[in-house]
Amino acid sequence: MKPKIILINGSPRKYGNVAKLLKIAEKGIIDAGGEAEVIHLCDYNIKPCMGCVSDDQKICKFPCIIDDDFNKIGEKILRAQGLIIGTPIYWYNVSGILKNFIDRLTSMENMIVHIGSSLLDGKVAGFIAVGNDSGSIEVLAQLMITLNSMGALIPPWAIAYHHTLEDVLEDKQAVLDSYNIGYNVVITAKSIVDIKKWYRVVDYKPLIDLALKYTEQEKEKQFPSRMNIYAKSMGAR
Amino acid sequence: MKPKIILINGSPRKYGNVAKLLKIAEKGIIDAGGEAEVIHLCDYNIKPCMGCVSDDQKICKFPCIIDDDFNKIGEKILRAQGLIIGTPIYWYNVSGILKNFIDRLTSMENMIVHIGSSLLDGKVAGFIAVGNDSGSIEVLAQLMITLNSMGALIPPWAIAYHHTLEDVLEDKQAVLDSYNIGYNVVITAKSIVDIKKWYRVVDYKPLIDLALKYTEQEKEKQFPSRMNIYAKSMGAR
Amino acid sequence: MKPKIILINGSPRKYGNVAKLLKIAEKGIIDAGGEAEVIHLCDYNIKPCMGCVSDDQKICKFPCIIDDDFNKIGEKILRAQGLIIGTPIYWYNVSGILKNFIDRLTSMENMIVHIGSSLLDGKVAGFIAVGNDSGSIEVLAQLMITLNSMGALIPPWAIAYHHTLEDVLEDKQAVLDSYNIGYNVVITAKSIVDIKKWYRVVDYKPLIDLALKYTEQEKEKQFPSRMNIYAKSMGAR
Amino acid sequence: MKPKIILINGSPRKYGNVAKLLKIAEKGIIDAGGEAEVIHLCDYNIKPCMGCVSDDQKICKFPCIIDDDFNKIGEKILRAQGLIIGTPIYWYNVSGILKNFIDRLTSMENMIVHIGSSLLDGKVAGFIAVGNDSGSIEVLAQLMITLNSMGALIPPWAIAYHHTLEDVLEDKQAVLDSYNIGYNVVITAKSIVDIKKWYRVVDYKPLIDLALKYTEQEKEKQFPSRMNIYAKSMGAR
Repeated sequence: MKPKIILINGSPRKYGNVAKLLKIAEKGIIDAGGEAEVIHLCDYNIKPCMGCVSDDQKICKFPCIIDDDFNKIGEKILRAQGLIIGTPIYWYNVSGILKNFIDRLTSMENMIVHIGSSLLDGKVAGFIAVGNDSGSIEVLAQLMITLNSMGALIPPWAIAYHHTLEDVLEDKQAVLDSYNIGYNVVITAKSIVDIKKWYRVVDYKPLIDLALKYTEQEKEKQFPSRMNIYAKSMGAR
Repeated sequence: MKPKIILINGSPRKYGNVAKLLKIAEKGIIDAGGEAEVIHLCDYNIKPCMGCVSDDQKICKFPCIIDDDFNKIGEKILRAQGLIIGTPIYWYNVSGILKNFIDRLTSMENMIVHIGSSLLDGKVAGFIAVGNDSGSIEVLAQLMITLNSMGALIPPWAIAYHHTLEDVLEDKQAVLDSYNIGYNVVITAKSIVDIKKWYRVVDYKPLIDLALKYTEQEKEKQFPSRMNIYAKSMGAR
Repeated sequence: MKPKIILINGSPRKYGNVAKLLKIAEKGIIDAGGEAEVIHLCDYNIKPCMGCVSDDQKICKFPCIIDDDFNKIGEKILRAQGLIIGTPIYWYNVSGILKNFIDRLTSMENMIVHIGSSLLDGKVAGFIAVGNDSGSIEVLAQLMITLNSMGALIPPWAIAYHHTLEDVLEDKQAVLDSYNIGYNVVITAKSIVDIKKWYRVVDYKPLIDLALKYTEQEKEKQFPSRMNIYAKSMGAR
Repeated sequence: MKPKIILINGSPRKYGNVAKLLKIAEKGIIDAGGEAEVIHLCDYNIKPCMGCVSDDQKICKFPCIIDDDFNKIGEKILRAQGLIIGTPIYWYNVSGILKNFIDRLTSMENMIVHIGSSLLDGKVAGFIAVGNDSGSIEVLAQLMITLNSMGALIPPWAIAYHHTLEDVLEDKQAVLDSYNIGYNVVITAKSIVDIKKWYRVVDYKPLIDLALKYTEQEKEKQFPSRMNIYAKSMGAR
């Protein structure tokens, strides 16, 4: 298998620091035996999410009902094994272009409601953020938990960032990290190829009983000493 | 292989909502063919990190020089294939007990400086946060990016949370999510067992050249139209 | 003085939960003796930020060079004493519509480069976030620090949120909080009316000397005991 | 009035970068006509929060029932008009020492349950974070929203940070920002001296009616066009 990885550039500039690090991640993808495709979001028309789920959760499905270029990119992701998202840091956050794209991914995730499974389930994801100033971790943490909540797996060392005025290519760490993101996304995608579905709906009643029994036992052991402290403090006050 | 997973409880209460969800995650671990061990941090004496790295980066190594129970838990993690961290939500963040524990993990991560590799490299991690009010995502996003930055891999659907006053066991989603965290940590650990090291130090000069060449080409194509907009606006102002 | 407060609705739906809480905040504004104007961003054409600052920091100024409706709203904010931003929670973050608006505020903040002062300096700001699920604090924390970094003052109890499937008007806390945001933005704006500029550029050399002298003294007192611990651990290893 | 401002140092090192910036903030306090007191948390014994509120919300009150040094610092804050919190950046977050302190502030905030008002209501707060690497905004955003949720007012330009390996005193921006934090905390405290209580409990039923009436009107205007899009997409699918 030759995993296909989509690189998403959320910058309005196709020649900037984000594009540089994505190109380096692409080299990691290829060296690890994968295929890559770079998508500059600024080349596409992606309108804001209309928030249909707030009117009716069932309206939101893939392909999205909004008539623009999103579904084209969605199809590419659907057929890929992973994606790497790169963004400039705008106010400690992703760019507006990228935010619109992420909001629209809801149509793929919300397929849980329709077919019991997110269309991003088991995709492998990595993240790159570049700015002149602080905020990189804020951005990356949010991208990471968002993609994980859509079903993506995050390989080790999945982030690269840069946050000073110097050129990003002077930043050896950012360069190596970007390469490793590409490499790790591919080898992880290869490793999990046999796992077809990552979320199991099981009978939750036995789970509840198990948890209750356990914490009741623990309470018997620990609570009296806490009660004691409460009682003492009541007396003192 | 029977992956060993450590469950870390950051709550001062061993009978609370965090303990409940961890117990359910433990069931997921066992059902997926793993072994589990629950560690209640409140049973251990874990002092705050002294910040040695700020005096000299080389001082910080595992085992940590502070004389308390941390290294005992560190040893357990070292021998395990994964860990699941559970925390109560205190001010949109982990508990102080857990924060001290995380700070002390630096001694394991900082082995990069000594042996070229974090002792958490390739461990698989999942996360649980429970509170009476908001803040769950804030906590979980930070735990996730922290563990990933120490070298951990995050499986799909790696978070469970609860943020209302009702008992957590009334929250079907939190119960199922916790079970799936346990299950996914184990099957992921099994899938990646052949990958021994996740970070490659490669020659970064060819990477820089590649990136530069690419963005120079892109600049030639895109910049003139931007320059045009700038020029027009200069005239107008 | 009758402070003017702009209420920004970042939702695509003008009849949703965000609109409800903003209406309640408006009542707080009026009761405290202010004036209010609600702006639904979905009624305006606001294009994404072009990232001009990355080409040349001086290009970015207010009015923004992009030809759309942003400058109209910018003018309103310029003449107002405060603003309250409301957003739906999309993936633990603001909506894409709102993110584009925030990115464009850079043109007002970046006036620091041109006239030594942000156009948002001393404005008073409050925040509302509503979703069906978690993420409210993530959103609100980011909005708060962003506006503060543009020069805004944040009054006590400046946030309101809701994060469950029930109607927001069932949530007494969210209702009262929204009212108080409106009220507090106004009484704070009245209190600080005499302060014309909030950032002072002073000679920083005496500050450096002061800090150095202080920490050298503290180091003499504290470092030997730390050195001792390091030495002991060296011996032991 | 001469506002009293408490400076909290969350670093284990009293001679490090955090101490330096706090000393500079102290100068800003004095220049603005305030009084300052520096507290190094590492000089105090502050145990972790026991999480009493999860057993019974009424147990948690100030003074806290835990027998250690917290209440001494709590008393100082009670008598002060503001506080500035400085922290090293440990894993994109505050230090464990500081986290324990923040968790314990719950005893002051939870007085809402006992006397209808947080003991931090109307205090003015500023924030400083220093690290060798990224994460500053993550830390500061969380501190800011936490203190605001306890009742604190945040003046404009309330943050200072530094995130590279060079000495913080080489960072002119961090130095000036720290000075301004001190200055702004004081002039803000002076401005709001007449406001005695910042949270109003009002009759929320008229607020609900107001919001409902407004959004019903807006729905009538906007919903038909959205319904139209939904209907069209149903046909097309």
